[in-house]
Amino acid sequence: MTQKNLDVVGIGNAIIDALAHVEVDFLKNNLPADVQPYAMTLITETQADEIYGSLKNCTIMPGGSAANSIASFAALGGRAGYIGKVANDQLGQIFTHDFRALGIEFHTKPLEGGPATARCMSMITPDAQRTMCTYLGASVVFDEKDVDEALIARANLTYLEGYLFDDQRAKAAYTRAAELTHRHGGRIALSLSDPFCVHRHREDFLQLIHDHVDVLFANEEEMKVLLGSSDVDAAHAEIAKYCDIAVVTLGKNGSQIISNGEKYQIAVVEPTKLVDTTGAGDAYAAGFLYGLSQGQNLAECGRMGSQSAARIIAHIGARPTGEMS
Amino acid sequence: MTQKNLDVVGIGNAIIDALAHVEVDFLKNNLPADVQPYAMTLITETQADEIYGSLKNCTIMPGGSAANSIASFAALGGRAGYIGKVANDQLGQIFTHDFRALGIEFHTKPLEGGPATARCMSMITPDAQRTMCTYLGASVVFDEKDVDEALIARANLTYLEGYLFDDQRAKAAYTRAAELTHRHGGRIALSLSDPFCVHRHREDFLQLIHDHVDVLFANEEEMKVLLGSSDVDAAHAEIAKYCDIAVVTLGKNGSQIISNGEKYQIAVVEPTKLVDTTGAGDAYAAGFLYGLSQGQNLAECGRMGSQSAARIIAHIGARPTGEMS
Repeated sequence: MTQKNLDVVGIGNAIIDALAHVEVDFLKNNLPADVQPYAMTLITETQADEIYGSLKNCTIMPGGSAANSIASFAALGGRAGYIGKVANDQLGQIFTHDFRALGIEFHTKPLEGGPATARCMSMITPDAQRTMCTYLGASVVFDEKDVDEALIARANLTYLEGYLFDDQRAKAAYTRAAELTHRHGGRIALSLSDPFCVHRHREDFLQLIHDHVDVLFANEEEMKVLLGSSDVDAAHAEIAKYCDIAVVTLGKNGSQIISNGEKYQIAVVEPTKLVDTTGAGDAYAAGFLYGLSQGQNLAECGRMGSQSAARIIAHIGARPTGEMS
Repeated sequence: MTQKNLDVVGIGNAIIDALAHVEVDFLKNNLPADVQPYAMTLITETQADEIYGSLKNCTIMPGGSAANSIASFAALGGRAGYIGKVANDQLGQIFTHDFRALGIEFHTKPLEGGPATARCMSMITPDAQRTMCTYLGASVVFDEKDVDEALIARANLTYLEGYLFDDQRAKAAYTRAAELTHRHGGRIALSLSDPFCVHRHREDFLQLIHDHVDVLFANEEEMKVLLGSSDVDAAHAEIAKYCDIAVVTLGKNGSQIISNGEKYQIAVVEPTKLVDTTGAGDAYAAGFLYGLSQGQNLAECGRMGSQSAARIIAHIGARPTGEMS
């Protein structure tokens, strides 16, 4: 069996974020009618150009849900790899550079001659909430061939983001990644990403969780949508039957972990300042999984998740910056 | 005569910055031997790729000396235009977007099929000083044809950066811009950019200042190199004979203005925190010129320059961000 010399391999949509502060009125007046405030909406390249054109003082930095988690995981000191598709363009080079600078193994072949590297406009309102519009571009021209068995074989855990379900090719790659992970004796973690994404692919998520997932991350809304229940506690208890560890993040109310019939309530760690919640969930998962990789108990894993999220909320963007590491 | 409905048109190298915090040892160990600490060194594309590859946690944002000044000028409320060359690539699109979002008129045709958009690695040491390495790329494939007479005709002042002298084609464009400015009744301001740049083109700078420049910005080192003098006061008094207004910035000691035989000493405005001096000189020029465009007296122009510089020093990067505007 291959030597396990990586803690986590992440698989997700490789995206560059453009982050900007906007007023709530901007969300009402400048976005396509079907964009959901405080959620993630998929948009076309033309819409992306229009929205970007209307934003001021953008901060450009690598994003992508699982990618953010992997970046935070590596910044904490973990050994990480990543599988995801950028295009062979300048934004793809920025994405790749930032990963490699953190010591993350990232070898997925960039896409040549197809759509550009994916872009997400993250619009931050004065309440520090983010509304995201994503043009998926190259990130979903990602299929089973891109699932690097050698990398997966070396990792103790494969971490998947729900957003990949938004494309049929990526979904097939997921199933392949899950099978390979178990064949090589690894575990699978999944983050549900977004309530609307869960709504779009509810049955497939339930199947994947049932068949493959060991550690599940979701927020309240996602958990309710997943089980079609208005009671988050009941939904959480139910889904915990499908997987070893089920974690629900509760925003200002901390988080809750259920595993082996035990329930752990984790207090929130207050951020030093409330700037931008973009990537807070991704950072939570990173801290939690880092604790797990270090053999910490579940309560401590939850605390490390909360701490990691608090750090990300205190600055703009979804990735750790120089100051924190 | 064309209606003057712009305060300033800037001309300079259109560059994207990659900013990163580094230790002083990094400057010694990771840079080509001819790179000058705390100055700007020109590098090849290969060197740019190598240096970028060794930097962690880069912040990507538009830069360029005159471009930074124009961005600050527009953020203060001034009416501005810009002439400079990006490539038709993603970094060029980011540069263009940020300018247009500030309401700056920017119509220079992007370069097709040539070098990529220029990049500058700005490495910030713990003393908040910056060391810059620049690959000029598309920015110097800029010639007389790019000098937009209609735009220059509409502006009261044309603002030039010294860095453009590092390329022969750009130098010809400069002379053309200066002639057009005076033909249309405008004034010329010049910022000397960097002592090594002044050293490289000393005679040409003296000629340009003598023939065309109305407002000159320089720091202590640049002024000394320009006049081959170790006494900055003497050099300053001498060069003031060539131009209406000669401004010397003195770092922590504020700045000094000489005009019409009068000398004004301007106190420094302390930044709220000392983070990154990248672009401090550019921001000073912007504040000063904004004061001038508003009909302020020279002492007040100097104070506005110092205030503008203080704001930029308090955050990473050379451009105003959402928080300040």
